[in-house]
Amino acid sequence: MPTLRLALCQVDPTVGDIAGNAELVRAWTRKAADAGAQLALFPELMLTGYPVEDLVFRRSFVAASRAALHRLAADLAADGLGDLPVLVGYLDADGPPQVSADAEPGRGARNAAALLHGGAVVATYFKHHLPNYGVFDEDRYFVSGDALTVVRIGGVDVALTICEDLWQAGGPFAVARHAGVGLVLNINGSPYELNKDDIRLPLVRRRAAEAGAAIAYVNMVGGQDELVYDGDSMIVDANGTLLARAPQFVEHLLVHDVDLPPAKEPVDGEQVAGGMRIVRAKVSDILPPAPVGEVAVGGIIAPVADEAEVWQALVVGLRDYVNKNRFPSVVLGLSGGIDSAVVAALAVDALGPDRVVGVSLPSQHSSEHSRADAEELAKRTGLDFRIEPIQPMVDTFLANMSLSGVTVENLQARVRGVILMALSNQEGHLVLTTGNKSELAVGYSTLYGDSVGGYNPVKDVWKTLIWRLAKWRNADAEWRGETPPIPENSIGKPPSAELSPGQLDSDSLPEYDVLDPILIGYVDGDLGREGLVASGHDPAIVDRVLRMVDTAEYKRRQSAPGTKISIKAFGRDRRLPITNRWREDG
Amino acid sequence: MPTLRLALCQVDPTVGDIAGNAELVRAWTRKAADAGAQLALFPELMLTGYPVEDLVFRRSFVAASRAALHRLAADLAADGLGDLPVLVGYLDADGPPQVSADAEPGRGARNAAALLHGGAVVATYFKHHLPNYGVFDEDRYFVSGDALTVVRIGGVDVALTICEDLWQAGGPFAVARHAGVGLVLNINGSPYELNKDDIRLPLVRRRAAEAGAAIAYVNMVGGQDELVYDGDSMIVDANGTLLARAPQFVEHLLVHDVDLPPAKEPVDGEQVAGGMRIVRAKVSDILPPAPVGEVAVGGIIAPVADEAEVWQALVVGLRDYVNKNRFPSVVLGLSGGIDSAVVAALAVDALGPDRVVGVSLPSQHSSEHSRADAEELAKRTGLDFRIEPIQPMVDTFLANMSLSGVTVENLQARVRGVILMALSNQEGHLVLTTGNKSELAVGYSTLYGDSVGGYNPVKDVWKTLIWRLAKWRNADAEWRGETPPIPENSIGKPPSAELSPGQLDSDSLPEYDVLDPILIGYVDGDLGREGLVASGHDPAIVDRVLRMVDTAEYKRRQSAPGTKISIKAFGRDRRLPITNRWREDG
Repeated sequence: MPTLRLALCQVDPTVGDIAGNAELVRAWTRKAADAGAQLALFPELMLTGYPVEDLVFRRSFVAASRAALHRLAADLAADGLGDLPVLVGYLDADGPPQVSADAEPGRGARNAAALLHGGAVVATYFKHHLPNYGVFDEDRYFVSGDALTVVRIGGVDVALTICEDLWQAGGPFAVARHAGVGLVLNINGSPYELNKDDIRLPLVRRRAAEAGAAIAYVNMVGGQDELVYDGDSMIVDANGTLLARAPQFVEHLLVHDVDLPPAKEPVDGEQVAGGMRIVRAKVSDILPPAPVGEVAVGGIIAPVADEAEVWQALVVGLRDYVNKNRFPSVVLGLSGGIDSAVVAALAVDALGPDRVVGVSLPSQHSSEHSRADAEELAKRTGLDFRIEPIQPMVDTFLANMSLSGVTVENLQARVRGVILMALSNQEGHLVLTTGNKSELAVGYSTLYGDSVGGYNPVKDVWKTLIWRLAKWRNADAEWRGETPPIPENSIGKPPSAELSPGQLDSDSLPEYDVLDPILIGYVDGDLGREGLVASGHDPAIVDRVLRMVDTAEYKRRQSAPGTKISIKAFGRDRRLPITNRWREDG
Repeated sequence: MPTLRLALCQVDPTVGDIAGNAELVRAWTRKAADAGAQLALFPELMLTGYPVEDLVFRRSFVAASRAALHRLAADLAADGLGDLPVLVGYLDADGPPQVSADAEPGRGARNAAALLHGGAVVATYFKHHLPNYGVFDEDRYFVSGDALTVVRIGGVDVALTICEDLWQAGGPFAVARHAGVGLVLNINGSPYELNKDDIRLPLVRRRAAEAGAAIAYVNMVGGQDELVYDGDSMIVDANGTLLARAPQFVEHLLVHDVDLPPAKEPVDGEQVAGGMRIVRAKVSDILPPAPVGEVAVGGIIAPVADEAEVWQALVVGLRDYVNKNRFPSVVLGLSGGIDSAVVAALAVDALGPDRVVGVSLPSQHSSEHSRADAEELAKRTGLDFRIEPIQPMVDTFLANMSLSGVTVENLQARVRGVILMALSNQEGHLVLTTGNKSELAVGYSTLYGDSVGGYNPVKDVWKTLIWRLAKWRNADAEWRGETPPIPENSIGKPPSAELSPGQLDSDSLPEYDVLDPILIGYVDGDLGREGLVASGHDPAIVDRVLRMVDTAEYKRRQSAPGTKISIKAFGRDRRLPITNRWREDG
């Protein structure tokens, strides 16, 4: 029975940085070769990053991806790494590789994988199942592939698949069984979701049973705009036994020796199974030598607690957003409350205290403990702390305009927004926003006030989870013998916006332990009123909460929509990644 | 040869207002009956409005649409209109009509049409071709129908189709030819695009040839968030002759007598053609009497000039956004420049001068002519004019913070934003934003400054088109003997942000007649650098413009993104209409 030493390269590519991503492949292929690997795998759309959204429609971008792929194959050979087969995701398209003025843009684009060996592209595969739900829009971008590629490597038949191919039964994995393969490679750009790692392993096991083959699953790590990839790469044998599993949220080289059945089928001749053609290829026999001596064991990382997982996701998402967009530092307002304290702690974990500026922005309604708690947080985390009182500016507006009630509350939040944006302009910081998902859902925030900012690490975190995260982070620090970053007082005190005397969140909202379960059912679960009441919630509170959420929809989508008179208005129908290094002028 | 009197009801439904939309069907069915119609057609997803986006995933919403359809059939009969067959778009789903706790939400949703007659639903059709490009995401929402419904009405076989079915060859229209129908009904939610009306008629003609049948094409009118439906309903005979055509952008009842071939095929028995089943039905013989006396002629509206068409689209989009979201009025800053002047004129055309507040927000850098031109605009249009000097607030910020350069420029724009939002809070106005598409593309604006606002009527209008629109609107007024709304000085003077002494747009940007063609190629045309240079643009200017556009991407998507840890984070993967009257609590 042949043994292949696999190297799963769980790396962090950057959208649009085709040259940089190719360099990443070269560097990690070197590491894989140094570890004696005989087959190296990189994630989905490795060369372009994922998702590239409407960049797919730009012919120059597709042409650059294709050109980079061939250059990479040559570069790997020039690096002395040509013997090692490398599977890498890239963007392809039907038709000639040249930029053609009369070709339909975006037509026939392919989410593709290529096997590089001996300085050349020896096989390609086009993703068959295109996800078009949740965060995925691949029916918009790609044409589905209709052929399963099977490559003989070191005497083993290996099938190539991409991401969603794994999530649906009856596709390439069923065809792989017909093709009699010993191993299926599956390369991914699979975003993190709460508890998704609990779903992945059983899923990989089911597909291993369907294919009757081992599976090597490699996923990217890192943040891309709102998405965070968590890695969680793994190898499962044909019986569903987990052989090796990489840690989440960090780059990692997972190297493991896998015993695989020898190939049985002839390499030539075309088959069709399950509506797909089976296309076979063979890499040359010039391969890295079979492993001798010590067996490579990748190890199996144990899953971590939910709070630890979410914390890491938020840290990585923020770090990559800041670094990939080349912001030197971040700034945020510190109210002394729990949300800004958690965001500050996340920012310090992501960037270090030297790259985080915290600003206390007291008004006449700010309590003494607010200022003290903000200062205590700054002391514990070591961030750059400032104080910018807002009252002089608020008073000038009030003296020059005739304002009252909620308008005056919102004015304070907006003056804070202007100050933070001025600091951002003057010093180059990215402004962090700190509104949690519960607040966002019910519209408990000031449009262009506390909602001002370029990134919000906790926009998808319910308030009750904010508290859990804070407690977990502090306990984790204590367990390590470090200073807990978040002042206990910020965790314990009743939440308040402090925009009018004695104001508390509970004046306007149900208690968060009542509110959050209703919001989770309505927002995350798509339950209607009837379904929520059937789940045991108080009908009067359900009605109150639903009305708040429905009327907050406008506030949430605050970047002014406008009338569209062309295909490419900015907004819904022009979708480009924010974090993106692609530049037409190179 | 039978003659059918068709009534195409080109109406303006509201997303989520299922009860109100059903009332609209009752009212217009009454009008159709009064005109002697024998068959009435309403637009796509008439009962729910279009697009309903992620509301599709809420079971209670689908259930409400289905219930409303059956109630509507009964109500029409109770109104004495049961004899008149009425085709109406609605949202359906596979499975039982009851809200079921264990059904998969959003699975099997259908973009559906129902023929109502005699108090009942006598036939249904599920949209076959689902658009998933540009503004459309229907692969996300719907399952494709696989049967063509043919209904015998007054001795004529009539096929039912929906929108995109018309845009692709080889689908239901080809099957309709196999089915031997005399008439194809096509109901639409087809958004306006520049010159789209020039494409529609040839397309309808091609499909008439493909089906060998007449086509009645009905489209909605009105604004829905960023989309504007322009109507342009029409009837074409089997030879491609245009028989009747409705005006754009207004509700309209298009009534026309159409001679049609008698049905030949048997009503029972199933056929299959072109991969679709053909399902036949028959409405009872109790129909409105055949037309006697005068022949109904719908008339053919002549196309209007581009500028007139765009102006109407912007007026309708703004009016419906304001009214459907129940804003009493709008407020905008008047700089004396062309953009705010055009937006003010649009707002007055959309809402009347009593619902428009214009605010001059002068600073120390505002020129005398800026204030005078703003005042002149106010005088000509009759809007509510105010002056709110910003210098005291700007000075207070400057006295309390250490700011310089561009930061001070941006500060002025942000103080204006705070003032406009304070007026919005205090008096209930919606803030209008006035940045044109050229500015937005290159990022020539202040984040949370002049970008503050709830709606921007000109966000998709290039600067050079802004000038053309202004000249057209003034000329049109002169032609009507009315006062041209836009001061000539606002049209003629060189554009300036007036944020620093003597500042002109041309200090920072190429002239707009150079800039716009490059932007149009890059943004609208997806051309890369090479393609733009090949089109004859100066390479150095191309590089400069592309760099501006690429780095402005972040500023454009200003509503803070953040890390996503669940399926239903707010943002890209939670898509709900803003303009939406659906309320779970009824």
